[in-house]
Amino acid sequence: MRVNAYAAPSATEPLVPTTIERRDVGPSDVLIEIRYAGICHSDIHLVRGDWGPVTYPQVVGHEIVGVVAEVGAEVTRHRVGDRVGVGCLVNSCRECENCRAGMEQYCLNGAVGTYASVDRDGTITQGGYSTHVVVDEDFVLRVPESIPFEKAAPLLCAGITTYSPLAHWQAGPGTRVAVVGMGGLGHMAVKIAHAMGATVTVLSQSLKKRDDGLALGADEYYATSDPDTFEALKNSFDLIVNTVSAPLDMDAYLGLLRLNGTLVNVGAPPEALPVHAFALSRNRRSFAGSSIGGIPETQEMLDFCAEHGIAPETELISADYVNEAYERVLASDVRYRFVIDIATLA
Amino acid sequence: MRVNAYAAPSATEPLVPTTIERRDVGPSDVLIEIRYAGICHSDIHLVRGDWGPVTYPQVVGHEIVGVVAEVGAEVTRHRVGDRVGVGCLVNSCRECENCRAGMEQYCLNGAVGTYASVDRDGTITQGGYSTHVVVDEDFVLRVPESIPFEKAAPLLCAGITTYSPLAHWQAGPGTRVAVVGMGGLGHMAVKIAHAMGATVTVLSQSLKKRDDGLALGADEYYATSDPDTFEALKNSFDLIVNTVSAPLDMDAYLGLLRLNGTLVNVGAPPEALPVHAFALSRNRRSFAGSSIGGIPETQEMLDFCAEHGIAPETELISADYVNEAYERVLASDVRYRFVIDIATLA
Repeated sequence: MRVNAYAAPSATEPLVPTTIERRDVGPSDVLIEIRYAGICHSDIHLVRGDWGPVTYPQVVGHEIVGVVAEVGAEVTRHRVGDRVGVGCLVNSCRECENCRAGMEQYCLNGAVGTYASVDRDGTITQGGYSTHVVVDEDFVLRVPESIPFEKAAPLLCAGITTYSPLAHWQAGPGTRVAVVGMGGLGHMAVKIAHAMGATVTVLSQSLKKRDDGLALGADEYYATSDPDTFEALKNSFDLIVNTVSAPLDMDAYLGLLRLNGTLVNVGAPPEALPVHAFALSRNRRSFAGSSIGGIPETQEMLDFCAEHGIAPETELISADYVNEAYERVLASDVRYRFVIDIATLA
Repeated sequence: MRVNAYAAPSATEPLVPTTIERRDVGPSDVLIEIRYAGICHSDIHLVRGDWGPVTYPQVVGHEIVGVVAEVGAEVTRHRVGDRVGVGCLVNSCRECENCRAGMEQYCLNGAVGTYASVDRDGTITQGGYSTHVVVDEDFVLRVPESIPFEKAAPLLCAGITTYSPLAHWQAGPGTRVAVVGMGGLGHMAVKIAHAMGATVTVLSQSLKKRDDGLALGADEYYATSDPDTFEALKNSFDLIVNTVSAPLDMDAYLGLLRLNGTLVNVGAPPEALPVHAFALSRNRRSFAGSSIGGIPETQEMLDFCAEHGIAPETELISADYVNEAYERVLASDVRYRFVIDIATLA
């Protein structure tokens, strides 16, 4: 089955319209007619080769929502016409202890990513900037009706990436959570942490997005360009979710944690992050990492967002705007996530 | 009250016998006739100025056991003749949230260390290489009768420093704990983790102390000089207690943690430790620090050791052997803790 897509022909050229091959619908597969696909900063890193060599042409996009168009003979979880989503994962070994615990993102044998991964059949996976995708039913999520469809896609990466550490480190009433960075991930972290009942502080480079932050649920908003911020907030937070992918002064941020606090990185700067032992041993602090979420937890996040009326702030674009959107993402000029209307690809 | 002590006259000279002044016994003070004092690696760092400027002469020693010789009018917790201990702390603000939680070691206003700290009266605290010490009763521990007195002193630093993270991160039946370094702290971590019911692996530079490690309770013993170790043990441990004060390749050790595992540093190398975000986000790992323990937890540790028949492996020395002992500690030539017989100072 050949379908329309927007693909990167190389690391240095703009994305262009093309067609790609999707596999036949196998017994446990679901064919999804994609409606919307979010643009994640990772998409840009990947197509530009920042994370290593890529086989081109490559279609990216791992924030996907659509409607089930066909199901394989053995599919039991999804039906034609269902609103569904696909995030960063389309397969995993299902046998290791992490998969068995529903933490497929930490599959010890290597989960299969939605794009640029080697699939079980040896082909390279192609992402969601495309009209259709075929995915094993176990990696397809249900998208609750109450979440506006054109806003739902970013939940599949930006939503789960921030929900998972907030849930794991138990953000809730009585806990003080800081969110570093007020971008696609950060604005979701603010909404989710607030909905969980935590007291939420945004730590952003400047105060430019302060009004937005407070409107989305933040209780406080500080500029990290102001050194007084680090003095005023020292020993304050139970949890800091760092959504910034550039290297920061980790010791300075660790100093903001109170007793038993955790600073969790959800971004992944390639540079080493220097940390001093004293910054950790004071207040028994932890410096942690977290990667998206497993399939059960992603469903839990979608249901949580539906229950709390949470959706990302998005700017809907047509497919031919993707290259311009990339430049604006790199310039932090988006509030707060671009979503491609896949109808414009048809 | 002038008492005998062994003091460092400067950063570069050997320790020498001298006398120092101890304060009068105040209403809440306890006068302790010191019997034994352990030698901690920190003592050496401190007297040599490795951690910053020192006011000389300085007496060190924060692993102290002795007998109560006198109590102030308001003392209720200790009586003349009691076997007691003093660790790394002799005071704290008692008012901050950490002190109120019994975590005086994380006092937000700065705990008073047993030596080289500015005491509440403005004097510099002097440590346990001395015949007597005067300490506020709240910072004096009870040493259970069943712990051999000449072995008990190292519990006050090496014991609590390893017990606290093992307890906090819940070492116990079903958990896999690795101990990095088989020195004064490491050998206590092995004993305590084993007594808690964890499966214990020692990661030491060589296999030289393997027989000791297994005899003390380790289930497995690996040499970190063998690169195969890092391959064989990847994704294995729930908790790694790193007792080594020199900078290690933290990414390599983090790679040994399974899902939700924590690597906790109890040593404090002054150098920055570079960590890559990917090493943390895989398996949702944490890199943490821990500093000694609070007073309630130190008592809990002493009682735990008494209950489980745990005591450090020690080599008893006379006071005039201290300088030679320091050289042997620096050469890792001690199994596993020197204890000064304070009777030789009288």
